[in-house]
Amino acid sequence: MSLQDNKTGQFSRRRLFGAVGTGAALVGVGAIAGHATASGAEVPTSDVVEFRGDHQAGIVTPAQDRMHFVAFDITTDSREDFVALLKKWTLMAERLVHGEETFDGGAVDGGEYNVPSDTGEALGLTASSLTLTIGFGPSMFDRFDLASKKPASLADLQHFPADNLDPRRSGGDLCIQACADDPQVAVHAIRNLARVGFGTVSVKWSQLGFGRTSSTSTTQATPRNLFGFKDGTANLKAEDPSLLDDNVWVAADDDQEWMAGGSYLVARRIRMLIESWDRTTLKEQERVIGRSKGTGAPLGQKDEFDALDFESQGPEGTFIDKTAHVRLASNENLGGVQLLRRGYNFTDGSDGFGHLDAGLFFIAYCRDPLTQFVPMQLALSRKDALNEYIQHVGSAVFACPPGVEESEYWGSTLFE
Amino acid sequence: MSLQDNKTGQFSRRRLFGAVGTGAALVGVGAIAGHATASGAEVPTSDVVEFRGDHQAGIVTPAQDRMHFVAFDITTDSREDFVALLKKWTLMAERLVHGEETFDGGAVDGGEYNVPSDTGEALGLTASSLTLTIGFGPSMFDRFDLASKKPASLADLQHFPADNLDPRRSGGDLCIQACADDPQVAVHAIRNLARVGFGTVSVKWSQLGFGRTSSTSTTQATPRNLFGFKDGTANLKAEDPSLLDDNVWVAADDDQEWMAGGSYLVARRIRMLIESWDRTTLKEQERVIGRSKGTGAPLGQKDEFDALDFESQGPEGTFIDKTAHVRLASNENLGGVQLLRRGYNFTDGSDGFGHLDAGLFFIAYCRDPLTQFVPMQLALSRKDALNEYIQHVGSAVFACPPGVEESEYWGSTLFE
Ligand code: HEM
Ligand code: HEM
Repeated sequence: MSLQDNKTGQFSRRRLFGAVGTGAALVGVGAIAGHATASGAEVPTSDVVEFRGDHQAGIVTPAQDRMHFVAFDITTDSREDFVALLKKWTLMAERLVHGEETFDGGAVDGGEYNVPSDTGEALGLTASSLTLTIGFGPSMFDRFDLASKKPASLADLQHFPADNLDPRRSGGDLCIQACADDPQVAVHAIRNLARVGFGTVSVKWSQLGFGRTSSTSTTQATPRNLFGFKDGTANLKAEDPSLLDDNVWVAADDDQEWMAGGSYLVARRIRMLIESWDRTTLKEQERVIGRSKGTGAPLGQKDEFDALDFESQGPEGTFIDKTAHVRLASNENLGGVQLLRRGYNFTDGSDGFGHLDAGLFFIAYCRDPLTQFVPMQLALSRKDALNEYIQHVGSAVFACPPGVEESEYWGSTLFE
Repeated sequence: MSLQDNKTGQFSRRRLFGAVGTGAALVGVGAIAGHATASGAEVPTSDVVEFRGDHQAGIVTPAQDRMHFVAFDITTDSREDFVALLKKWTLMAERLVHGEETFDGGAVDGGEYNVPSDTGEALGLTASSLTLTIGFGPSMFDRFDLASKKPASLADLQHFPADNLDPRRSGGDLCIQACADDPQVAVHAIRNLARVGFGTVSVKWSQLGFGRTSSTSTTQATPRNLFGFKDGTANLKAEDPSLLDDNVWVAADDDQEWMAGGSYLVARRIRMLIESWDRTTLKEQERVIGRSKGTGAPLGQKDEFDALDFESQGPEGTFIDKTAHVRLASNENLGGVQLLRRGYNFTDGSDGFGHLDAGLFFIAYCRDPLTQFVPMQLALSRKDALNEYIQHVGSAVFACPPGVEESEYWGSTLFE
């Protein structure tokens, strides 16, 4: 199998099973299936996001509806084994995003005496715009003689005021972000990648996001977060490549050359204290955010995409409060700092105190966490009116290497 | 507002927000909005599942893609308060399934000095085939002088071999099952119902299901569970009303008259030990289930919907193993016992031992848990080959009252 085979994107894992029947018949099919999908039916490829390119997909890709995010610990001391896993993952990931099974043979065509090479729960589903994005955590660079390659910007985030971090939801030697329009496709991908990682990596934590909270493209309607507000209005957008170059993509001379074309991912699991929020007036909610809840327009303006006006006065002072979230987070307040937000809403059972455990799994991509995320979160954690209604309970940072070119693999600029 | 207003289904919560703008302007809009959606744009109603009828929706409704399930404890001693909540919930539920906001005014039109009556995160989304189904747990009947109305069939389930139940994921005085094709719509509904319940009920546990594992209608393709097998092939289907009458709907003379037209819901949180499963051969997996993984056909047959043949012999004995899941669960083995399965796949982070915490949130509806679910689960828990790969970690049973007619409310046959 060559990598090129996967680039056609014309076939899909999701074969239509004809009257193949019993195990005995399946052996035959497996034996002749040189290409996993050679006997498959064609499926529409419009929902395939290409895997290869200058940058990894899943960063400026228009945010898909659902997400499954996993952080791993490395459990091997062998650099060779770890690099072998990265190579295997790359092959699998490219197949998965094309809607194919992880390997030739897959769930049912590999012969009945073999362990199926794909777990099968995505059979029949389309590619669903799946993207898979890998990132390396600070602790990974303590291993494999990588210390000299560690970017200065890649360090565990400092403690911020009111942080209440759960170590079981924080950190990780590496991560994979799976985004797709069908959650079963995202979960299937993570599960199969975790599966082949057995013995080399182990799952540290994972997070399911059921709804995107940010738009990352001007082609998308702005979704709402669990506080009921439109989220992503003033986000960086895929359609503005020069802003992305300035704020998202690492440049060759920024620091470590292997990160050129990559980006840093900051993840924060933010619990929303929805019971307190739900007891406040509309006026208070809009004051806290600084925008109108219905339209998403900045306070004092009419339309969602009107510019924020931090100076003009209404009857009670500036339209946008001094502690409003959008004021403190704005590039005007932060001397030009911006980043790309790409988070998801979550709900994970109950908190044990009679409430839903729900919130925002905040994901941001930036060129340098130390000069972008950190000052922004410092400003917010000190003064944001929103702090009364949220609590940061998980934190992680990862260096996402550049996109993989033909014959490269995830992280090859670092390991070769 | 009359209940009839909600039955038109022509309008939707999801108003298109025009250039309404600032809080001040919103007050005006709220004031003139006699009907929450009077000024709203029309939206397609094809994804509305009617709320009222002989039976509650969400039982034989073709299974929607996503689910949010919540179990509550009652925190009041006042029957009056509890009944008032049920009435309020009924009004809200009927509005929600029509894609409207929970109450007049909603998230943004209720006046800026008021607490919004809807949390707003579903603004802009359609009804998404939302159904809301209520059930009453055994412990509820210890309250409110209800002991004499407790059905004999409604008792905490017995302990089954290998049960490993977590009390924090089991039981509950009552439950609400929200199913929808958009998870944000299901989560929004549960959250708003929980919100107005504050002081009367508190969340005991909740479960998000990201993908349906069963088909419940012949119009649906059979989905796959996390073991990669088609699930729901031999399920009861909405298109066979006489089987549903026999196996799902409680008859007037079964026991308690108030349950006539209702059904019993059994929920089992079943952890799937996917790492062990993923290490077995295709042959073993198919032996365990008794069906082909690709087509879903019974072993020894060709097509998914071919009848199961438990007698015919292959080279190694009966095609369908003596301990195969489908043999033990079949009505042939159980003297005619059947039930309606309506479960969802879940994944909830990691298990703390390097693996994903994933599985099947099994939901079954039946006319009598004691004569249907219990013997079936006894047969399975004793002999099922699947037991090596699963573990039951949560359990609950609820009596779901009949559908609400005009001017009735959830549970009115019990409380009036
Ligand atoms: C649960 C927590 C949070 C909620 C509910 C929330 C909500 C919002 C909302 C509703 C907006 C306005 C719409 C938009 O422009 O996207 C916004 C804007 C923004 N938020 Fe947040 N946010 C949260 C956490 C954070 C965090 C942790 C950061 C970064 C450290 C952040 C950075 C920003 C930025 C940069 C903007 C755009 C500001 C501007 O230039 O107008 N947010 N957020
Ligand atoms: C994680 C646990 C489970 C898995 C993976 C599983 C999987 C399956 C599969 C793949 C089928 C065949 C397709 C079909 O006819 O739907 C099936 C059938 C069935 N299962 Fe399960 N199941 C599980 C738990 C249960 C439980 C707890 C019960 C009830 C106590 C149950 C009752 C049934 C029944 C009644 C059938 C149909 C049997 C027939 O008449 O052919 N299952 N299951």
